[in-house]
Amino acid sequence: MIALDALLGWLDVAGVAVFAVSGALVAAQKRLDLVGFTVIAVLTGFGGGTLRDLLLGRTPIFWLQRPELIAAAGAAAFAVFMLRPRPTGEFTALLWADAVGMALYAVLGAEIALLSGAQPWAAVLLGVVTASFGGVLRDVVCDEIPLLFQKEIYALAALAGAATFVALRLNGIWRDPALLIGVAVGFAIRGAAIRFGWSLPTYRPRG
Amino acid sequence: MIALDALLGWLDVAGVAVFAVSGALVAAQKRLDLVGFTVIAVLTGFGGGTLRDLLLGRTPIFWLQRPELIAAAGAAAFAVFMLRPRPTGEFTALLWADAVGMALYAVLGAEIALLSGAQPWAAVLLGVVTASFGGVLRDVVCDEIPLLFQKEIYALAALAGAATFVALRLNGIWRDPALLIGVAVGFAIRGAAIRFGWSLPTYRPRG
Amino acid sequence: MIALDALLGWLDVAGVAVFAVSGALVAAQKRLDLVGFTVIAVLTGFGGGTLRDLLLGRTPIFWLQRPELIAAAGAAAFAVFMLRPRPTGEFTALLWADAVGMALYAVLGAEIALLSGAQPWAAVLLGVVTASFGGVLRDVVCDEIPLLFQKEIYALAALAGAATFVALRLNGIWRDPALLIGVAVGFAIRGAAIRFGWSLPTYRPRG
Repeated sequence: MIALDALLGWLDVAGVAVFAVSGALVAAQKRLDLVGFTVIAVLTGFGGGTLRDLLLGRTPIFWLQRPELIAAAGAAAFAVFMLRPRPTGEFTALLWADAVGMALYAVLGAEIALLSGAQPWAAVLLGVVTASFGGVLRDVVCDEIPLLFQKEIYALAALAGAATFVALRLNGIWRDPALLIGVAVGFAIRGAAIRFGWSLPTYRPRG
Repeated sequence: MIALDALLGWLDVAGVAVFAVSGALVAAQKRLDLVGFTVIAVLTGFGGGTLRDLLLGRTPIFWLQRPELIAAAGAAAFAVFMLRPRPTGEFTALLWADAVGMALYAVLGAEIALLSGAQPWAAVLLGVVTASFGGVLRDVVCDEIPLLFQKEIYALAALAGAATFVALRLNGIWRDPALLIGVAVGFAIRGAAIRFGWSLPTYRPRG
Repeated sequence: MIALDALLGWLDVAGVAVFAVSGALVAAQKRLDLVGFTVIAVLTGFGGGTLRDLLLGRTPIFWLQRPELIAAAGAAAFAVFMLRPRPTGEFTALLWADAVGMALYAVLGAEIALLSGAQPWAAVLLGVVTASFGGVLRDVVCDEIPLLFQKEIYALAALAGAATFVALRLNGIWRDPALLIGVAVGFAIRGAAIRFGWSLPTYRPRG
């Protein structure tokens, strides 16, 4: 289990980096400078966990005690700025990495909420917030309507992963298997949506 | 008074639902999916009270303990998505329901601030925040300049209602009559603005 | 030192007023009403300090106990609305006043973070947040991509000022000289950027 904990510790940093890269790519589309890249990378990487902790009253906020997380976000922004990818390109690898980050954040966010005394439904909700609010902030700050609201199956995958984890924990399953199964469920649904192009219907007015 | 308390309890849920519907109607204009409808409904319904409580330090935030409020917002979003109104239509009924919700939120928000030890002027300010910030969030997230800033008489009505309530309470008037009078003042001003088309002048540069 | 403290007390109010004016000028470009002017002035003036204090858990938030700060922001909004400047005009004086406000907020924000027990690097980061987040909020609410992200040297000047202050304090320099030197460094860099048109390179994709 020590190996798993170590892996999860690294996944935490990797999750921040992946979300930070997704923020930097939107910054690239908008032709921003390095400050813009860094701020948007940080907002995308930490936005979800920050809103969760503010709602729970867990302050001072976690990343003020974790310089390695800030460094990961900053390094991701710097790398994208320097490597100069064309924003029109295909970012398949990023999509899949983002799916891992999303599944992990949803489950870890739900766990932190449970440990803070939140009711199970609220913990699931906060898992979804942790996984998706960073991307919402990224899009709002870049003057776009958030991708989250537009037919991609994303929040639902986070919901399924977080709900699976919470249900397993409430039924006495140990933490590590519950965590792995929750992440797997969230990742599988998101992965299927990416692979098979699943999407939700958007609004059509009557008539 | 028990009947009044029960009524106010239901008005609370109804207020969330009304604001949630106003959020869902903006989501309809933007042709979002059901996730977008739900998130924007929740932001609109809870945004004001959430900002008030974060500023006051009242955490964990209230709606994490009130699943019925979340359910009301979600049901409102679902109903709008399914009923498929045309966003160009006239929503007169909604305007009036929103006026009730606004007046109620302004007064209840000011009361919560007073009970948390805020000074009277700060309580009035937080009443206005409670009544109006959800709509600001709704518009920002949907990539619009908030309606609140554009000549409609809305924040001023919330200000009048909250100030009336706080003034009555400071002068020893009981809670329930103060609450009813405050709501009536806020609703009357907003209602007159709707009925007679009152609006504020917007900025015109010199020359 | 009493004179310096008094001056700093007034600079605090003046800093709010300067940021509030910059918010009101954006409101003028958008042809908003007086409510919009006031709300955006308040967001610009208090946004940075509010985010800093929410992240640190310092609630109730400071401006709920300082009516003179709210009054300064409101008066600034009212003055801009009434004086009706043409938004296309040159606002050189404002640029320089804003540079003073930025330098002061960066250092005072870092000091508050240090006093709250933040690590030095986190205090520098929170100084930058204090100095710049109000302007980000102003631009997001007005449906613009934040100026902060677009090549102006602003956040870097705040970073230099806050870092200078924190480094001096950690090396045993008294508060008042450290504060003055930190403000001078931040202001000098920002001032040079304004005077000589320094800017950061923006993103250019490969090929």
